[in-house]
Amino acid sequence: MSDVSPEQEAVEQTLVDTVVASFDACEDPRLKEVMVSLTRHLHAFIRDVRLTEEEWAAAIDFLTKAGHITDDVRQEFILLSDTLGASMQTININNEAYADATEATVFGPFFVEDSPAIELGGDMAFGAPGEPCWVSGTVTDTDGKPLVGARIEVWEADEDGLYDVQRDAGARAARAHLFTDEEGGYRFWGLTPTPYPIPDDGPVGKMLAAVGRSPLRASHLHFMVTHEGCRTLVTHIFPEGDPIGWKDTVFGVKESLIKKFERQAAGTPTPDGRAVDGTWSKVRFDIVLAPAGA
Amino acid sequence: MSDVSPEQEAVEQTLVDTVVASFDACEDPRLKEVMVSLTRHLHAFIRDVRLTEEEWAAAIDFLTKAGHITDDVRQEFILLSDTLGASMQTININNEAYADATEATVFGPFFVEDSPAIELGGDMAFGAPGEPCWVSGTVTDTDGKPLVGARIEVWEADEDGLYDVQRDAGARAARAHLFTDEEGGYRFWGLTPTPYPIPDDGPVGKMLAAVGRSPLRASHLHFMVTHEGCRTLVTHIFPEGDPIGWKDTVFGVKESLIKKFERQAAGTPTPDGRAVDGTWSKVRFDIVLAPAGA
Ligand SMILES: [Fe+2]
Ligand SMILES: [Fe+2]
Repeated sequence: MSDVSPEQEAVEQTLVDTVVASFDACEDPRLKEVMVSLTRHLHAFIRDVRLTEEEWAAAIDFLTKAGHITDDVRQEFILLSDTLGASMQTININNEAYADATEATVFGPFFVEDSPAIELGGDMAFGAPGEPCWVSGTVTDTDGKPLVGARIEVWEADEDGLYDVQRDAGARAARAHLFTDEEGGYRFWGLTPTPYPIPDDGPVGKMLAAVGRSPLRASHLHFMVTHEGCRTLVTHIFPEGDPIGWKDTVFGVKESLIKKFERQAAGTPTPDGRAVDGTWSKVRFDIVLAPAGA
Repeated sequence: MSDVSPEQEAVEQTLVDTVVASFDACEDPRLKEVMVSLTRHLHAFIRDVRLTEEEWAAAIDFLTKAGHITDDVRQEFILLSDTLGASMQTININNEAYADATEATVFGPFFVEDSPAIELGGDMAFGAPGEPCWVSGTVTDTDGKPLVGARIEVWEADEDGLYDVQRDAGARAARAHLFTDEEGGYRFWGLTPTPYPIPDDGPVGKMLAAVGRSPLRASHLHFMVTHEGCRTLVTHIFPEGDPIGWKDTVFGVKESLIKKFERQAAGTPTPDGRAVDGTWSKVRFDIVLAPAGA
Protein backbone atom coordinates (compact mmCIF):
# COMPACT_ATOMS: atom_id res chain seq x y z
CA MET A 1 0.00 0.00 0.00
CA SER A 2 3.00 2.25 -0.69
CA ASP A 3 1.04 4.82 -2.70
CA VAL A 4 -1.75 5.36 -0.19
CA SER A 5 -1.69 8.84 1.36
CA PRO A 6 -1.64 9.19 5.16
CA GLU A 7 -5.09 10.82 4.97
CA GLN A 8 -6.50 7.90 2.99
CA GLU A 9 -4.78 5.43 5.33
CA ALA A 10 -6.51 7.18 8.25
CA VAL A 11 -9.94 7.00 6.56
CA GLU A 12 -9.53 3.27 5.97
CA GLN A 13 -8.19 2.51 9.46
CA THR A 14 -10.97 4.55 11.08
CA LEU A 15 -13.53 2.41 9.28
CA VAL A 16 -11.88 -0.79 10.53
CA ASP A 17 -11.94 0.58 14.09
CA THR A 18 -15.61 1.57 13.73
CA VAL A 19 -16.64 -1.88 12.49
CA VAL A 20 -14.64 -3.55 15.28
CA ALA A 21 -16.33 -1.28 17.85
CA SER A 22 -19.77 -2.28 16.50
CA PHE A 23 -19.23 -5.66 18.20
CA ASP A 24 -18.60 -4.08 21.62
CA ALA A 25 -22.06 -4.99 22.91
CA CYS A 26 -21.73 -8.68 21.98
CA GLU A 27 -22.33 -10.71 25.15
CA ASP A 28 -20.74 -13.92 23.85
CA PRO A 29 -16.97 -13.39 24.23
CA ARG A 30 -16.04 -16.13 21.74
CA LEU A 31 -18.46 -14.84 19.06
CA LYS A 32 -17.08 -11.35 19.61
CA GLU A 33 -13.49 -12.58 19.23
CA VAL A 34 -14.33 -14.40 15.99
CA MET A 35 -16.26 -11.47 14.46
CA VAL A 36 -13.57 -8.92 15.38
CA SER A 37 -10.83 -11.11 13.91
CA LEU A 38 -12.91 -11.77 10.77
CA THR A 39 -13.45 -8.02 10.36
CA ARG A 40 -9.74 -7.22 10.73
CA HIS A 41 -8.60 -9.91 8.28
CA LEU A 42 -11.36 -9.16 5.75
CA HIS A 43 -10.50 -5.46 5.71
CA ALA A 44 -6.77 -6.21 5.55
CA PHE A 45 -7.43 -8.33 2.45
CA ILE A 46 -9.55 -5.64 0.76
CA ARG A 47 -6.96 -2.96 1.54
CA ASP A 48 -3.92 -5.06 0.58
CA VAL A 49 -5.21 -5.87 -2.89
CA ARG A 50 -6.95 -2.47 -3.30
CA LEU A 51 -10.07 -4.39 -4.31
CA THR A 52 -11.90 -2.77 -7.22
CA GLU A 53 -15.66 -2.29 -7.31
CA GLU A 54 -15.85 -4.73 -10.25
CA GLU A 55 -13.95 -7.37 -8.24
CA TRP A 56 -16.25 -6.80 -5.27
CA ALA A 57 -19.24 -7.35 -7.58
CA ALA A 58 -17.60 -10.52 -8.98
CA ALA A 59 -17.17 -11.84 -5.41
CA ILE A 60 -20.87 -11.20 -4.64
CA ASP A 61 -21.80 -12.97 -7.88
CA PHE A 62 -19.50 -15.92 -7.06
CA LEU A 63 -21.08 -16.39 -3.62
CA THR A 64 -24.58 -16.05 -5.08
CA LYS A 65 -23.91 -18.74 -7.71
CA ALA A 66 -22.32 -20.98 -5.07
CA GLY A 67 -25.43 -20.58 -2.94
CA HIS A 68 -27.75 -21.41 -5.79
CA ILE A 69 -25.92 -24.59 -6.87
CA THR A 70 -25.80 -25.85 -3.26
CA ASP A 71 -28.51 -28.33 -2.27
CA ASP A 72 -28.87 -31.45 -0.11
CA VAL A 73 -26.27 -33.42 -2.10
CA ARG A 74 -24.06 -30.66 -3.51
CA GLN A 75 -22.13 -28.35 -1.16
CA GLU A 76 -20.25 -25.67 -3.10
CA PHE A 77 -19.18 -23.74 0.02
CA ILE A 78 -17.39 -26.85 1.36
CA LEU A 79 -15.68 -27.22 -2.03
CA LEU A 80 -14.62 -23.58 -1.78
CA SER A 81 -13.27 -24.08 1.74
CA ASP A 82 -11.52 -27.28 0.61
CA THR A 83 -9.86 -25.75 -2.46
CA LEU A 84 -8.61 -22.74 -0.48
CA GLY A 85 -7.09 -25.10 2.11
CA ALA A 86 -9.40 -23.66 4.79
CA SER A 87 -10.89 -27.08 5.58
CA MET A 88 -7.45 -28.68 5.94
CA GLN A 89 -6.19 -25.79 8.09
CA THR A 90 -9.21 -26.23 10.41
CA ILE A 91 -8.40 -29.97 10.61
CA ASN A 92 -4.76 -29.15 11.43
CA ILE A 93 -5.76 -26.79 14.22
CA ASN A 94 -8.23 -29.19 15.81
CA ASN A 95 -6.22 -32.37 15.37
CA GLU A 96 -2.79 -31.26 16.49
CA ALA A 97 -0.40 -34.18 16.12
CA TYR A 98 -0.34 -36.20 19.35
CA ALA A 99 2.72 -38.32 20.09
CA ASP A 100 2.75 -41.06 17.45
CA ALA A 101 -0.99 -41.10 16.86
CA THR A 102 -2.12 -41.38 13.23
CA GLU A 103 -2.63 -37.99 11.56
CA ALA A 104 -6.03 -36.66 10.47
CA THR A 105 -7.04 -35.25 7.12
CA VAL A 106 -10.19 -33.79 5.53
CA PHE A 107 -13.56 -35.45 6.03
CA GLY A 108 -14.88 -34.76 2.52
CA PRO A 109 -18.55 -34.56 1.54
CA PHE A 110 -19.24 -38.25 0.82
CA PHE A 111 -19.57 -39.90 4.24
CA VAL A 112 -23.01 -41.30 5.07
CA GLU A 113 -24.24 -42.50 8.46
CA ASP A 114 -25.83 -45.78 7.37
CA SER A 115 -23.01 -47.75 5.76
CA PRO A 116 -23.51 -51.53 5.60
CA ALA A 117 -21.72 -53.71 8.20
CA ILE A 118 -19.19 -56.27 6.98
CA GLU A 119 -17.39 -59.08 8.79
CA LEU A 120 -13.61 -59.04 9.20
CA GLY A 121 -12.24 -60.08 5.81
CA GLY A 122 -15.48 -59.03 4.08
CA ASP A 123 -15.80 -57.06 0.83
CA MET A 124 -16.82 -53.39 1.13
CA ALA A 125 -17.00 -52.91 -2.67
CA PHE A 126 -20.51 -54.38 -2.98
CA GLY A 127 -20.00 -54.61 -6.72
CA ALA A 128 -18.49 -51.14 -7.30
CA PRO A 129 -16.05 -51.33 -10.24
CA GLY A 130 -12.30 -51.33 -9.56
CA GLU A 131 -9.24 -53.43 -8.81
CA PRO A 132 -9.61 -55.42 -5.58
CA CYS A 133 -7.38 -54.31 -2.71
CA TRP A 134 -6.69 -56.25 0.50
CA VAL A 135 -6.47 -53.76 3.37
CA SER A 136 -5.26 -54.88 6.81
CA GLY A 137 -3.68 -53.58 9.97
CA THR A 138 -4.22 -52.95 13.65
CA VAL A 139 -5.80 -50.30 15.82
CA THR A 140 -3.88 -49.46 19.02
CA ASP A 141 -3.61 -46.64 21.51
CA THR A 142 -0.45 -44.52 21.82
CA ASP A 143 0.97 -47.03 24.36
CA GLY A 144 0.69 -49.78 21.73
CA LYS A 145 -2.23 -51.48 23.49
CA PRO A 146 -4.60 -53.16 20.97
CA LEU A 147 -8.04 -51.57 20.83
CA VAL A 148 -10.64 -54.33 20.68
CA GLY A 149 -13.98 -53.64 18.98
CA ALA A 150 -12.86 -50.30 17.51
CA ARG A 151 -15.36 -49.20 14.83
CA ILE A 152 -13.79 -48.61 11.42
CA GLU A 153 -15.79 -46.81 8.73
CA VAL A 154 -14.27 -46.99 5.25
CA TRP A 155 -15.46 -45.34 2.02
CA GLU A 156 -13.99 -44.53 -1.36
CA ALA A 157 -14.70 -43.64 -4.99
CA ASP A 158 -14.90 -46.43 -7.56
CA GLU A 159 -12.57 -46.67 -10.58
CA ASP A 160 -14.87 -44.30 -12.53
CA GLY A 161 -14.14 -41.64 -9.90
CA LEU A 162 -17.64 -41.74 -8.44
CA TYR A 163 -18.98 -42.38 -4.96
CA ASP A 164 -22.13 -44.52 -4.69
CA VAL A 165 -24.21 -41.49 -3.65
CA GLN A 166 -23.16 -39.62 -6.80
CA ARG A 167 -24.71 -42.38 -8.91
CA ASP A 168 -27.84 -42.69 -6.77
CA ALA A 169 -28.47 -41.01 -3.40
CA GLY A 170 -29.83 -44.27 -2.00
CA ALA A 171 -27.07 -46.60 -3.24
CA ARG A 172 -24.52 -48.04 -0.80
CA ALA A 173 -21.32 -49.46 -2.36
CA ALA A 174 -17.58 -49.04 -1.80
CA ARG A 175 -18.41 -48.21 1.81
CA ALA A 176 -18.84 -50.27 4.97
CA HIS A 177 -18.10 -50.49 8.66
CA LEU A 178 -16.38 -53.26 10.61
CA PHE A 179 -14.92 -53.82 14.08
CA THR A 180 -11.42 -54.85 15.21
CA ASP A 181 -10.89 -58.34 16.62
CA GLU A 182 -9.50 -59.45 20.02
CA GLU A 183 -5.96 -58.45 18.98
CA GLY A 184 -7.07 -55.04 17.58
CA GLY A 185 -6.66 -56.42 14.06
CA TYR A 186 -8.78 -55.68 11.01
CA ARG A 187 -8.86 -56.73 7.35
CA PHE A 188 -11.20 -56.29 4.40
CA TRP A 189 -11.41 -56.25 0.62
CA GLY A 190 -11.75 -52.77 -0.89
CA LEU A 191 -10.71 -51.16 -4.19
CA THR A 192 -7.29 -49.80 -5.18
CA PRO A 193 -7.91 -46.02 -4.96
CA THR A 194 -7.83 -43.93 -8.15
CA PRO A 195 -7.87 -40.11 -8.63
CA TYR A 196 -11.18 -38.34 -9.14
CA PRO A 197 -12.24 -34.74 -9.77
CA ILE A 198 -14.25 -32.78 -7.24
CA PRO A 199 -17.55 -31.64 -8.81
CA ASP A 200 -16.27 -28.90 -11.12
CA ASP A 201 -19.32 -27.67 -13.04
CA GLY A 202 -19.99 -24.81 -10.61
CA PRO A 203 -18.26 -21.57 -9.58
CA VAL A 204 -15.47 -23.40 -7.70
CA GLY A 205 -14.67 -25.42 -10.84
CA LYS A 206 -14.61 -22.16 -12.82
CA MET A 207 -12.24 -20.64 -10.27
CA LEU A 208 -9.89 -23.63 -10.47
CA ALA A 209 -9.89 -23.40 -14.28
CA ALA A 210 -9.26 -19.64 -14.19
CA VAL A 211 -6.20 -20.05 -11.96
CA GLY A 212 -4.84 -23.05 -13.89
CA ARG A 213 -5.52 -25.66 -11.18
CA SER A 214 -6.73 -29.22 -11.70
CA PRO A 215 -9.92 -30.35 -9.94
CA LEU A 216 -8.37 -33.78 -9.25
CA ARG A 217 -7.97 -35.23 -5.81
CA ALA A 218 -5.05 -37.54 -4.99
CA SER A 219 -6.19 -41.19 -4.93
CA HIS A 220 -7.32 -42.12 -1.42
CA LEU A 221 -9.28 -44.44 0.83
CA HIS A 222 -11.26 -42.80 3.66
CA PHE A 223 -11.18 -44.05 7.29
CA MET A 224 -13.06 -42.95 10.37
CA VAL A 225 -12.03 -44.87 13.49
CA THR A 226 -13.76 -44.59 16.87
CA HIS A 227 -13.13 -46.26 20.23
CA GLU A 228 -14.26 -45.29 23.71
CA GLY A 229 -11.66 -43.21 25.53
CA CYS A 230 -9.94 -42.25 22.26
CA ARG A 231 -10.03 -39.21 20.01
CA THR A 232 -12.03 -40.08 16.87
CA LEU A 233 -9.74 -40.24 13.85
CA VAL A 234 -10.91 -39.03 10.42
CA THR A 235 -8.27 -39.65 7.81
CA HIS A 236 -7.34 -41.11 4.41
CA ILE A 237 -4.51 -43.27 3.14
CA PHE A 238 -2.86 -42.31 -0.16
CA PRO A 239 -1.02 -44.71 -2.51
CA GLU A 240 2.70 -44.10 -2.91
CA GLY A 241 3.57 -42.95 -6.44
CA ASP A 242 0.10 -41.57 -7.16
CA PRO A 243 -0.04 -39.36 -10.30
CA ILE A 244 -1.79 -36.56 -8.38
CA GLY A 245 -0.32 -37.01 -4.91
CA TRP A 246 0.89 -33.69 -3.48
CA LYS A 247 -1.04 -31.79 -6.16
CA ASP A 248 -4.25 -32.89 -4.38
CA THR A 249 -6.68 -30.05 -5.01
CA VAL A 250 -7.88 -30.01 -1.37
CA PHE A 251 -4.40 -30.26 0.22
CA GLY A 252 -5.24 -33.43 2.17
CA VAL A 253 -1.96 -35.36 1.66
CA LYS A 254 0.41 -35.88 4.61
CA GLU A 255 3.70 -37.77 4.37
CA SER A 256 2.71 -40.19 7.14
CA LEU A 257 -0.50 -41.12 5.30
CA ILE A 258 1.20 -42.22 2.06
CA LYS A 259 1.21 -46.05 1.98
CA LYS A 260 2.65 -48.67 -0.31
CA PHE A 261 -0.17 -50.33 -2.24
CA GLU A 262 1.61 -53.45 -3.57
CA ARG A 263 0.32 -54.48 -6.99
CA GLN A 264 -0.07 -58.30 -7.35
CA ALA A 265 0.09 -60.09 -10.70
CA ALA A 266 -2.99 -61.94 -11.90
CA GLY A 267 -3.13 -65.37 -10.32
CA THR A 268 -1.16 -64.46 -7.19
CA PRO A 269 -2.78 -66.32 -4.26
CA THR A 270 -4.82 -64.01 -2.03
CA PRO A 271 -4.43 -63.80 1.78
CA ASP A 272 -7.84 -65.36 2.40
CA GLY A 273 -7.91 -67.75 -0.57
CA ARG A 274 -10.48 -65.67 -2.45
CA ALA A 275 -10.37 -66.17 -6.22
CA VAL A 276 -9.63 -62.87 -7.95
CA ASP A 277 -9.81 -62.31 -11.72
CA GLY A 278 -6.75 -60.30 -12.81
CA THR A 279 -4.50 -58.07 -10.72
CA TRP A 280 -5.11 -57.04 -7.14
CA SER A 281 -3.22 -54.99 -4.57
CA LYS A 282 -2.57 -55.03 -0.86
CA VAL A 283 -1.78 -52.39 1.71
CA ARG A 284 -1.09 -52.37 5.44
CA PHE A 285 -2.31 -49.48 7.61
CA ASP A 286 -1.65 -49.59 11.34
CA ILE A 287 -3.79 -47.03 13.11
CA VAL A 288 -2.89 -45.36 16.41
CA LEU A 289 -5.61 -43.42 18.24
CA ALA A 290 -4.79 -40.52 20.58
CA PRO A 291 -6.47 -40.43 23.99
CA ALA A 292 -9.77 -38.53 24.12
CA GLY A 293 -9.33 -34.88 24.98
CA ALA A 294 -5.68 -34.96 23.88
CA MET B 1 -1.17 -18.21 19.21
CA SER B 2 1.10 -18.34 22.27
CA ASP B 3 0.37 -21.97 23.10
CA VAL B 4 1.00 -23.37 19.61
CA SER B 5 4.12 -25.55 19.48
CA PRO B 6 6.83 -24.80 16.91
CA GLU B 7 6.04 -28.15 15.21
CA GLN B 8 2.36 -27.27 14.93
CA GLU B 9 3.23 -23.76 13.76
CA ALA B 10 5.35 -25.35 11.01
CA VAL B 11 2.53 -27.69 9.93
CA GLU B 12 0.13 -24.76 9.62
CA GLN B 13 2.58 -22.46 7.83
CA THR B 14 3.54 -25.23 5.39
CA LEU B 15 -0.12 -25.61 4.43
CA VAL B 16 -0.42 -21.87 3.78
CA ASP B 17 2.69 -22.01 1.57
CA THR B 18 1.32 -25.03 -0.31
CA VAL B 19 -2.03 -23.35 -1.01
CA VAL B 20 -0.26 -20.16 -2.13
CA ALA B 21 1.96 -22.22 -4.46
CA SER B 22 -1.13 -23.84 -6.00
CA PHE B 23 -1.77 -20.51 -7.74
CA ASP B 24 1.70 -20.44 -9.36
CA ALA B 25 0.36 -21.46 -12.77
CA CYS B 26 -2.28 -18.71 -12.87
CA GLU B 27 -1.69 -16.67 -16.03
CA ASP B 28 -3.70 -13.64 -14.91
CA PRO B 29 -1.36 -11.71 -12.59
CA ARG B 30 -4.15 -9.73 -10.94
CA LEU B 31 -6.28 -12.82 -10.28
CA LYS B 32 -3.21 -14.53 -8.83
CA GLU B 33 -2.49 -11.56 -6.55
CA VAL B 34 -6.08 -11.53 -5.28
CA MET B 35 -6.24 -15.31 -4.67
CA VAL B 36 -2.87 -15.40 -2.91
CA SER B 37 -3.83 -12.50 -0.64
CA LEU B 38 -7.25 -14.05 0.04
CA THR B 39 -5.55 -17.33 0.99
CA ARG B 40 -3.09 -15.64 3.35
CA HIS B 41 -5.74 -13.57 5.12
CA LEU B 42 -8.25 -16.45 5.32
CA HIS B 43 -5.67 -18.76 6.87
CA ALA B 44 -4.46 -16.02 9.23
CA PHE B 45 -8.04 -15.60 10.45
CA ILE B 46 -8.55 -19.35 10.98
CA ARG B 47 -5.24 -19.65 12.83
CA ASP B 48 -5.67 -16.50 14.93
CA VAL B 49 -9.03 -17.56 16.34
CA ARG B 50 -8.10 -21.29 16.40
CA LEU B 51 -11.38 -21.94 14.57
CA THR B 52 -13.17 -25.02 15.88
CA GLU B 53 -14.73 -27.63 13.60
CA GLU B 54 -18.19 -26.67 14.93
CA GLU B 55 -17.53 -23.02 14.06
CA TRP B 56 -16.34 -24.03 10.59
CA ALA B 57 -19.59 -25.99 10.12
CA ALA B 58 -21.60 -22.97 11.36
CA ALA B 59 -19.86 -20.79 8.76
CA ILE B 60 -20.72 -23.24 5.97
CA ASP B 61 -24.31 -23.31 7.20
CA PHE B 62 -24.45 -19.48 7.34
CA LEU B 63 -23.23 -19.17 3.75
CA THR B 64 -25.64 -21.87 2.59
CA LYS B 65 -28.62 -20.11 4.19
CA ALA B 66 -27.46 -16.77 2.76
CA GLY B 67 -27.32 -18.37 -0.68
CA HIS B 68 -30.77 -19.86 -0.37
CA ILE B 69 -32.50 -16.62 0.75
CA THR B 70 -30.82 -14.66 -2.07
CA ASP B 71 -32.93 -14.12 -5.20
CA ASP B 72 -33.55 -11.39 -7.79
CA VAL B 73 -34.80 -8.88 -5.22
CA ARG B 74 -33.01 -10.02 -2.03
CA GLN B 75 -29.20 -10.03 -1.81
CA GLU B 76 -28.00 -11.45 1.49
CA PHE B 77 -24.30 -11.47 0.48
CA ILE B 78 -24.43 -7.70 -0.12
CA LEU B 79 -26.05 -7.29 3.30
CA LEU B 80 -23.23 -9.37 4.77
CA SER B 81 -20.59 -7.27 3.01
CA ASP B 82 -22.39 -4.09 4.11
CA THR B 83 -22.72 -5.06 7.77
CA LEU B 84 -19.05 -6.09 7.99
CA GLY B 85 -18.04 -2.74 6.51
CA ALA B 86 -16.52 -4.48 3.47
CA SER B 87 -18.74 -2.55 1.04
CA MET B 88 -17.83 0.79 2.61
CA GLN B 89 -14.12 -0.10 2.65
CA THR B 90 -14.30 -0.93 -1.07
CA ILE B 91 -16.00 2.45 -1.67
CA ASN B 92 -13.28 4.20 0.34
CA ILE B 93 -10.52 2.54 -1.67
CA ASN B 94 -12.06 3.32 -5.04
CA ASN B 95 -13.30 6.81 -4.26
CA GLU B 96 -10.30 8.32 -2.53
CA ALA B 97 -11.16 11.86 -1.48
CA TYR B 98 -10.24 14.29 -4.29
CA ALA B 99 -9.58 17.92 -3.37
CA ASP B 100 -12.93 19.30 -2.21
CA ALA B 101 -15.10 16.96 -4.24
CA THR B 102 -18.16 15.53 -2.46
CA GLU B 103 -17.45 12.23 -0.71
CA ALA B 104 -18.97 8.90 -1.79
CA THR B 105 -20.79 6.33 0.30
CA VAL B 106 -22.42 2.93 -0.23
CA PHE B 107 -24.68 2.31 -3.22
CA GLY B 108 -27.15 0.07 -1.39
CA PRO B 109 -29.40 -2.52 -3.03
CA PHE B 110 -32.40 -0.33 -3.95
CA PHE B 111 -31.30 1.61 -7.03
CA VAL B 112 -33.21 0.82 -10.23
CA GLU B 113 -32.29 1.90 -13.76
CA ASP B 114 -35.69 3.14 -14.91
CA SER B 115 -36.60 5.89 -12.45
CA PRO B 116 -39.21 8.42 -13.68
CA ALA B 117 -37.98 11.82 -14.93
CA ILE B 118 -39.12 14.97 -13.09
CA GLU B 119 -38.78 18.64 -13.95
CA LEU B 120 -36.72 20.96 -11.77
CA GLY B 121 -38.90 21.68 -8.74
CA GLY B 122 -40.93 18.51 -9.36
CA ASP B 123 -42.01 15.96 -6.74
CA MET B 124 -40.09 12.66 -6.63
CA ALA B 125 -42.36 11.15 -3.92
CA PHE B 126 -45.08 10.09 -6.37
CA GLY B 127 -47.44 9.60 -3.44
CA ALA B 128 -45.03 7.72 -1.12
CA PRO B 129 -45.91 8.56 2.52
CA GLY B 130 -43.70 10.96 4.46
CA GLU B 131 -43.05 14.59 5.37
CA PRO B 132 -42.32 16.75 2.30
CA CYS B 133 -38.74 17.97 2.01
CA TRP B 134 -37.48 20.70 -0.33
CA VAL B 135 -34.02 19.73 -1.57
CA SER B 136 -31.90 22.20 -3.53
CA GLY B 137 -28.30 22.97 -4.40
CA THR B 138 -25.78 23.17 -7.19
CA VAL B 139 -23.52 20.78 -9.06
CA THR B 140 -20.05 22.14 -9.86
CA ASP B 141 -16.61 20.83 -10.70
CA THR B 142 -13.66 21.18 -8.31
CA ASP B 143 -12.85 24.61 -9.83
CA GLY B 144 -16.33 25.82 -8.88
CA LYS B 145 -17.56 25.84 -12.49
CA PRO B 146 -21.32 25.04 -12.70
CA LEU B 147 -22.06 21.72 -14.41
CA VAL B 148 -25.03 22.23 -16.74
CA GLY B 149 -27.28 19.25 -17.52
CA ALA B 150 -25.73 16.98 -14.86
CA ARG B 151 -27.98 13.98 -14.30
CA ILE B 152 -29.12 13.57 -10.70
CA GLU B 153 -30.73 10.30 -9.60
CA VAL B 154 -32.39 10.44 -6.18
CA TRP B 155 -34.07 7.63 -4.24
CA GLU B 156 -35.09 6.98 -0.64
CA ALA B 157 -37.27 4.92 1.70
CA ASP B 158 -40.70 6.25 2.66
CA GLU B 159 -41.72 7.01 6.25
CA ASP B 160 -42.65 3.34 6.77
CA GLY B 161 -39.00 2.46 6.08
CA LEU B 162 -39.76 0.82 2.75
CA TYR B 163 -38.49 1.42 -0.78
CA ASP B 164 -41.08 1.23 -3.56
CA VAL B 165 -39.58 -2.05 -4.88
CA GLN B 166 -40.01 -3.66 -1.44
CA ARG B 167 -43.76 -3.02 -1.68
CA ASP B 168 -44.03 -4.12 -5.32
CA ALA B 169 -41.11 -4.88 -7.68
CA GLY B 170 -42.79 -2.87 -10.44
CA ALA B 171 -43.69 0.22 -8.38
CA ARG B 172 -41.76 3.50 -8.83
CA ALA B 173 -42.12 6.05 -6.03
CA ALA B 174 -39.76 8.13 -3.87
CA ARG B 175 -37.30 7.96 -6.75
CA ALA B 176 -36.68 10.09 -9.83
CA HIS B 177 -34.06 11.68 -12.04
CA LEU B 178 -33.64 15.31 -13.04
CA PHE B 179 -31.03 17.55 -14.69
CA THR B 180 -29.27 20.70 -13.50
CA ASP B 181 -30.19 24.05 -15.08
CA GLU B 182 -27.99 26.62 -16.88
CA GLU B 183 -26.41 27.68 -13.56
CA GLY B 184 -25.81 24.09 -12.40
CA GLY B 185 -28.73 24.44 -9.98
CA TYR B 186 -31.28 21.80 -9.01
CA ARG B 187 -34.32 21.59 -6.74
CA PHE B 188 -37.06 19.07 -6.07
CA TRP B 189 -39.58 17.90 -3.49
CA GLY B 190 -38.67 14.68 -1.71
CA LEU B 191 -39.37 13.22 1.73
CA THR B 192 -37.61 13.97 5.02
CA PRO B 193 -35.48 10.80 5.47
CA THR B 194 -36.29 8.42 8.36
CA PRO B 195 -34.33 5.39 9.70
CA TYR B 196 -35.17 1.94 8.36
CA PRO B 197 -33.94 -1.58 9.07
CA ILE B 198 -32.07 -3.59 6.48
CA PRO B 199 -33.98 -6.83 5.74
CA ASP B 200 -33.25 -8.75 8.94
CA ASP B 201 -35.22 -12.00 8.63
CA GLY B 202 -32.24 -13.94 7.22
CA PRO B 203 -28.84 -15.10 8.47
CA VAL B 204 -27.37 -11.56 8.46
CA GLY B 205 -30.23 -10.38 10.68
CA LYS B 206 -29.59 -13.34 13.01
CA MET B 207 -25.89 -12.43 13.13
CA LEU B 208 -26.69 -8.80 14.03
CA ALA B 209 -29.04 -9.97 16.80
CA ALA B 210 -26.45 -12.44 18.12
CA VAL B 211 -23.79 -9.74 18.43
CA GLY B 212 -26.19 -7.15 19.89
CA ARG B 213 -26.29 -4.86 16.85
CA SER B 214 -29.32 -3.00 15.49
CA PRO B 215 -30.34 -3.57 11.86
CA LEU B 216 -31.20 0.14 11.48
CA ARG B 217 -29.62 2.38 8.90
CA ALA B 218 -29.09 6.07 9.61
CA SER B 219 -31.78 8.16 7.85
CA HIS B 220 -30.57 9.13 4.37
CA LEU B 221 -31.42 10.31 0.88
CA HIS B 222 -29.51 8.64 -2.00
CA PHE B 223 -27.86 10.58 -4.83
CA MET B 224 -26.08 9.44 -7.96
CA VAL B 225 -24.72 12.33 -10.03
CA THR B 226 -23.15 11.98 -13.48
CA HIS B 227 -21.67 14.50 -15.89
CA GLU B 228 -19.34 14.03 -18.84
CA GLY B 229 -15.71 14.49 -17.90
CA CYS B 230 -16.46 13.92 -14.20
CA ARG B 231 -16.15 10.96 -11.85
CA THR B 232 -19.65 9.60 -11.15
CA LEU B 233 -20.63 10.27 -7.55
CA VAL B 234 -22.70 7.76 -5.57
CA THR B 235 -23.53 9.13 -2.15
CA HIS B 236 -26.20 9.90 0.47
CA ILE B 237 -26.98 12.88 2.66
CA PHE B 238 -27.77 12.27 6.33
CA PRO B 239 -29.88 14.57 8.57
CA GLU B 240 -28.03 16.24 11.43
CA GLY B 241 -29.24 14.94 14.81
CA ASP B 242 -30.50 11.63 13.44
CA PRO B 243 -31.30 9.06 16.18
CA ILE B 244 -29.19 6.39 14.40
CA GLY B 245 -26.50 8.52 12.76
CA TRP B 246 -23.04 7.11 13.41
CA LYS B 247 -24.56 3.81 14.57
CA ASP B 248 -25.57 3.19 10.91
CA THR B 249 -25.42 -0.59 10.54
CA VAL B 250 -23.60 -0.38 7.18
CA PHE B 251 -21.08 2.31 8.27
CA GLY B 252 -22.08 4.73 5.49
CA VAL B 253 -22.01 8.02 7.46
CA LYS B 254 -19.30 10.61 6.77
CA GLU B 255 -19.05 13.96 8.60
CA SER B 256 -19.15 15.92 5.33
CA LEU B 257 -22.40 14.23 4.30
CA ILE B 258 -24.38 15.22 7.41
CA LYS B 259 -26.69 18.10 6.46
CA LYS B 260 -29.10 20.33 8.34
CA PHE B 261 -32.68 19.41 7.42
CA GLU B 262 -34.57 22.47 8.69
CA ARG B 263 -38.02 21.60 10.01
CA GLN B 264 -40.71 24.15 8.99
CA ALA B 265 -43.88 24.71 11.01
CA ALA B 266 -47.22 23.94 9.37
CA GLY B 267 -48.31 26.88 7.23
CA THR B 268 -44.80 28.17 6.53
CA PRO B 269 -44.77 29.39 2.91
CA THR B 270 -42.89 27.02 0.60
CA PRO B 271 -40.10 28.10 -1.81
CA ASP B 272 -42.24 27.39 -4.87
CA GLY B 273 -45.60 28.36 -3.43
CA ARG B 274 -46.82 24.79 -3.21
CA ALA B 275 -49.51 24.21 -0.59
CA VAL B 276 -48.31 21.69 1.99
CA ASP B 277 -50.52 20.20 4.71
CA GLY B 278 -48.60 20.19 7.98
CA THR B 279 -44.86 20.42 8.57
CA TRP B 280 -42.19 20.22 5.91
CA SER B 281 -38.40 20.48 5.86
CA LYS B 282 -35.71 21.89 3.63
CA VAL B 283 -32.09 21.04 3.02
CA ARG B 284 -29.32 22.41 0.82
CA PHE B 285 -26.75 20.08 -0.73
CA ASP B 286 -24.08 21.55 -3.00
CA ILE B 287 -22.39 18.80 -4.95
CA VAL B 288 -18.81 18.93 -6.27
CA LEU B 289 -17.75 16.32 -8.83
CA ALA B 290 -14.11 15.23 -9.20
CA PRO B 291 -12.62 15.07 -12.69
CA ALA B 292 -12.93 11.68 -14.44
CA GLY B 293 -9.97 9.42 -13.81
CA ALA B 294 -9.04 11.32 -10.63
FE1 LIG C 1 -12.88 -38.78 -1.09
FE1 LIG D 1 -30.96 3.38 1.40
